[in-house]
Amino acid sequence: MTKTVLLIGIGAGDPDQLTLQAVKAMNRAGIFFLPDKGSEKAGLRAVREALCRQVMTHDRYRWVCYDVPQRDARIAEYRARVAAWHDALADRFETMIVEALPENGCGAFLVWGDPSLFDSTLRIIETVRRRGVSFAFEVIPGITSVQTLAARHKTTLGAIGEKITILPARLLARGWPDDLGSAIVMLDSGAALERLRTNTELTVLWGANLGTGDERVISGRLCEVFASIQTARRAIKEKRGWVMDVYMLRRETGPGGETARDVKDERFPPMTD
Amino acid sequence: MTKTVLLIGIGAGDPDQLTLQAVKAMNRAGIFFLPDKGSEKAGLRAVREALCRQVMTHDRYRWVCYDVPQRDARIAEYRARVAAWHDALADRFETMIVEALPENGCGAFLVWGDPSLFDSTLRIIETVRRRGVSFAFEVIPGITSVQTLAARHKTTLGAIGEKITILPARLLARGWPDDLGSAIVMLDSGAALERLRTNTELTVLWGANLGTGDERVISGRLCEVFASIQTARRAIKEKRGWVMDVYMLRRETGPGGETARDVKDERFPPMTD
Repeated sequence: MTKTVLLIGIGAGDPDQLTLQAVKAMNRAGIFFLPDKGSEKAGLRAVREALCRQVMTHDRYRWVCYDVPQRDARIAEYRARVAAWHDALADRFETMIVEALPENGCGAFLVWGDPSLFDSTLRIIETVRRRGVSFAFEVIPGITSVQTLAARHKTTLGAIGEKITILPARLLARGWPDDLGSAIVMLDSGAALERLRTNTELTVLWGANLGTGDERVISGRLCEVFASIQTARRAIKEKRGWVMDVYMLRRETGPGGETARDVKDERFPPMTD
Repeated sequence: MTKTVLLIGIGAGDPDQLTLQAVKAMNRAGIFFLPDKGSEKAGLRAVREALCRQVMTHDRYRWVCYDVPQRDARIAEYRARVAAWHDALADRFETMIVEALPENGCGAFLVWGDPSLFDSTLRIIETVRRRGVSFAFEVIPGITSVQTLAARHKTTLGAIGEKITILPARLLARGWPDDLGSAIVMLDSGAALERLRTNTELTVLWGANLGTGDERVISGRLCEVFASIQTARRAIKEKRGWVMDVYMLRRETGPGGETARDVKDERFPPMTD
């Protein structure tokens, strides 16, 4: 195998969030594969390009852009629709790796946060490998917005001895599950949080564009701070053209404001060690 | 407030896993607070000290060690026992911050992985603050072993559109919950995995001392690879005096080896977007 593909987690876009490992990996690359999602996302592409300019110690690299297809709204079932979309992206990845990446060349995908957390680039690259395209493949972890959220709010992700749950927002379409004590929610268009806003038991620790100059954090009882979150979200989106937020929700046990315990969950044993 | 305390996630101990932000933060520190867990853990302390030597750009810093008390086995309830232990640690933290850290000084705690993931240092520092000790406090995220595990196995943490669950091993004391499709398990003494070894539905992606020179990864059907994991675990512990492992378990849907979906979980809505 003579071609190498690197999948590098870059954190939020702030060069300081890069690991030394990620900087070294970026400097091995001669090509950066960049998604081109249209003008409204041009800001995101600019962040990736700026990151390259700041940490590269040589100038023997170039950007190869690929267009990101639309998801096919005619496919009703969610997973099937995503799978079809991944296949279309795999076609583009395959073309780039076969045609744009020279023999012995090294190409890199720069992924927001970490490649293992709600990002599909890894799956799509593996799809290309399964199709028989030959290349070495390495994954480099990156700081996620979940970790930055916790750092900004100076909180742990879970209560002592409890499980940690990270949810895509769509799993909250029916509201907050009765037996869930806390969760970190990602990929919300804004709809999931709005749906929960009347739930007076929930406390929210919210953050948007964490690790960037536009960073905002808000916390409090969801029913009381929801309007501020919505305003902040809109302001960032208007200013930057994009907003990425993440939040932690906790069911509070009482007025003391202490972190909720998971309510009794029969699937897991009691805490007697 | 004139004193500053930094809580810095350092990843696994490999300097390359540090973020640029963590390196900058470490260089602000004049004191590093190090736990002294006795001779069997001396290796861990040596890793922290070596890390300092490698990334510090000045020599105006020193190490202040604190002893780590035993948990009180007479307290039967798990959370109460942990809370008492945290209080005892808070006493030591308070003494160090009040007596060892000079006015305008900056002291740092170096935490394996990330301060938000199954680590108590953050809670203990907040306890000292609640006692009225005055200092500024910042948290810097770090790469967790969970992320390195995913990178080494070239896998995502969750299936498309599904929740991600991270469990302390003790929550698996009664075995694998019927409705759980996959989970990442931490803090296992070895007992939880051994208890599950006869579950023929489970596939494991295992890693120990990830991001260090002793790193080992093993994957396969749990019932088939458990013995190898146990052997590898013992070998590392014998060689280094400590072993830290983490693993992902997935219930497989069939012989194809494709990642399991969560079995129907009535708490969450169906995937229809």
